[in-house]
Amino acid sequence: MNIHELIKPLLQKNDSKIVMYVGDGLGGLPQQPGGKTELETAKTPHLDKLAKEGVCGGSIPVAPGISPGSGPGHLGLFGYDPVEFLIGRGALEATGIGFKLEEGDVAIRANFCTLDAAGNISDRRAGRIPTEESTPIVERLAKEIKIDGVEVIVKPVKEHRFVVVLRGPGLEGNVADTDPQATGVPPLSAVAKDAGSAKTAKICDEFIAQVKKLLADEPKANCCTLRGITGKPSIENFETVYGLKAAAIAVYPMYKGLASLVGMDVVGDAQTIDEQMEVLKANWDKYDFFFIHFKYTDSTGEDGAFDAKVKRTEEYDAAVPKIMALKPDVFIATGDHSTPAMLASHSWHPVPTLLWAKNCRCDGAESFGEAECRTGGLGQFEAKHLMTLALANANRLAKFGA
Amino acid sequence: MNIHELIKPLLQKNDSKIVMYVGDGLGGLPQQPGGKTELETAKTPHLDKLAKEGVCGGSIPVAPGISPGSGPGHLGLFGYDPVEFLIGRGALEATGIGFKLEEGDVAIRANFCTLDAAGNISDRRAGRIPTEESTPIVERLAKEIKIDGVEVIVKPVKEHRFVVVLRGPGLEGNVADTDPQATGVPPLSAVAKDAGSAKTAKICDEFIAQVKKLLADEPKANCCTLRGITGKPSIENFETVYGLKAAAIAVYPMYKGLASLVGMDVVGDAQTIDEQMEVLKANWDKYDFFFIHFKYTDSTGEDGAFDAKVKRTEEYDAAVPKIMALKPDVFIATGDHSTPAMLASHSWHPVPTLLWAKNCRCDGAESFGEAECRTGGLGQFEAKHLMTLALANANRLAKFGA
Repeated sequence: MNIHELIKPLLQKNDSKIVMYVGDGLGGLPQQPGGKTELETAKTPHLDKLAKEGVCGGSIPVAPGISPGSGPGHLGLFGYDPVEFLIGRGALEATGIGFKLEEGDVAIRANFCTLDAAGNISDRRAGRIPTEESTPIVERLAKEIKIDGVEVIVKPVKEHRFVVVLRGPGLEGNVADTDPQATGVPPLSAVAKDAGSAKTAKICDEFIAQVKKLLADEPKANCCTLRGITGKPSIENFETVYGLKAAAIAVYPMYKGLASLVGMDVVGDAQTIDEQMEVLKANWDKYDFFFIHFKYTDSTGEDGAFDAKVKRTEEYDAAVPKIMALKPDVFIATGDHSTPAMLASHSWHPVPTLLWAKNCRCDGAESFGEAECRTGGLGQFEAKHLMTLALANANRLAKFGA
Repeated sequence: MNIHELIKPLLQKNDSKIVMYVGDGLGGLPQQPGGKTELETAKTPHLDKLAKEGVCGGSIPVAPGISPGSGPGHLGLFGYDPVEFLIGRGALEATGIGFKLEEGDVAIRANFCTLDAAGNISDRRAGRIPTEESTPIVERLAKEIKIDGVEVIVKPVKEHRFVVVLRGPGLEGNVADTDPQATGVPPLSAVAKDAGSAKTAKICDEFIAQVKKLLADEPKANCCTLRGITGKPSIENFETVYGLKAAAIAVYPMYKGLASLVGMDVVGDAQTIDEQMEVLKANWDKYDFFFIHFKYTDSTGEDGAFDAKVKRTEEYDAAVPKIMALKPDVFIATGDHSTPAMLASHSWHPVPTLLWAKNCRCDGAESFGEAECRTGGLGQFEAKHLMTLALANANRLAKFGA
């Protein structure tokens, strides 16, 4: 079933406001069987109140048993089938540093490497050159490299990693990696995997040739390999699909990037959750839909820090009254995946989700947590259905069929 | 979504062991509304303990309301979409007698019939000729029938039913039944439904001609009809799909056959559940995945024998400590479908399922039964997702997307 094709003819406009408040990696696991999860341990009075008044459930980010990265996790929440709408590594890397890809761009993840005198790779990561050393080199490449007929944008990432974006007519992104995944051999030539990508492959080779020439005297970073060469993913605009003018309020570049890939406006420059709330208030009248991203439930989970995740979850909860004071019509609290501190990684476990709106069918949940969500009224559902539920609860969807 | 294509790039190897312990027809119904099912009535202390420590749910074999046969029931558990991967009747009949089909084989379900003097069918089942009479006739056919350019394998089944397998180059299995489904008319000629099956159709006609000649003097079984003419189903190998070296430990030929169709090794020659446990132990170090099939929860259900099914369910439970003594990383107890004694047949009701592993999110189930599974943490899920959950819980799946 193509959900977007299903709902597009049903869309109806009104003045309702929808807030999707994402606690990254929100779901967790207890420290011992029968114990409480991070979310269940945390004191979350505001979310508990909304869980009582609203409807809860468990969101399956991709499919049962699949642990998603941030890309598929968020695409699912935004209502795009995360298996259908894949984001290439290059596009994700560019997105992750907050670079705004345009239609027709080709994005590339580049690694500095070290070539020996014979021209073979002696270190695929240029000795993991520190960021403070690699950044000036990247800046030099950005300034010096010129290729006919194409704009070459080069941006630093971290250590040996940087991003290359090619912008110009006739570029397609289906080119094989030039990293041979081995040392003692020369870098590979760029090979187009289809006819439309021939021009891109030629430019990639030219790029590497210029890098080698420019960096010949560098002790470590004297060449580079190109990986994950991909076009901007073709994703239909969020506003076209849902009729919602959407704002993203995030601190970290990756999430701003993901939101902008689907066409949301990234608003403000908040660095804390309190500042995010100020940005929300300042933009309240300008948008229909607000995606608010809270990072620290994931990062503490990734660190395996149960108690720290509990504390961060309480911060996540503490901001809720500021959202509710604006009187949204639909409020959703969820995560893009679970990140149980016990696993110190993303996991496949369903994500606790609550939807609060005027016409919810309450499910008797007494608080917001994994156990209450397990028997909640939303059941276990694939994340990609959440946007349809949001629209329905905002009275933005007409009847399907007569 | 093609689950296999989704998970293949995510597979990672480790030393974990997964056991799928299938109680055929495990799910049931109470004898009166509000009563207990067979599984809930049975004393199953070992499964109850694992339900407490693990996570439960209801497996939907094919789709809500669909009662599957053994073929689709097991394919779903093995993670193959049972609607996409259909096993033709001929292939299923051959599989059911434990015949190992090879790539390119065409399998046919044959029925003895009786022709009158005019050459019309007077009995489509040759008077349901007893097995002891039909078997020697089948053996005669197996010995006498010779067709140029093809090996003809003929095997007895039961009463008027037998199996024909054609083996040789250029055979395809898309040929219409020769059974006219009526008496007073002659058998139909074999008609190919596509160009690639023309040779098979010709051989089918030649086969019937030889049968008529050889059996002209038989009073009842003087001809045969051919049905369910099908090739070996094209099913990607279990090990290729999941990276799991898999062993099947079953007593009955049908289940050995289904396991071997997906490429599992059928190990041992156990005749009882105790012997199956010995085979399991003996093969523990050689495989990653074990499919153990217990038949009698289904056969007693089919007999409409509630109390007998309860007793058999207790036998199913009694073997569990022997499995757990081997310390599997993931243990799954489930069924291929429900077979409520009250219905004396396969049914569509979700199948009680428990998954036990180190990183389960416990769901508060106190015992293993239909009611506890209904509110379990696995929710109600399509059986085809169970293998992905098994892999995830065995830490054999990397993150999807970055």
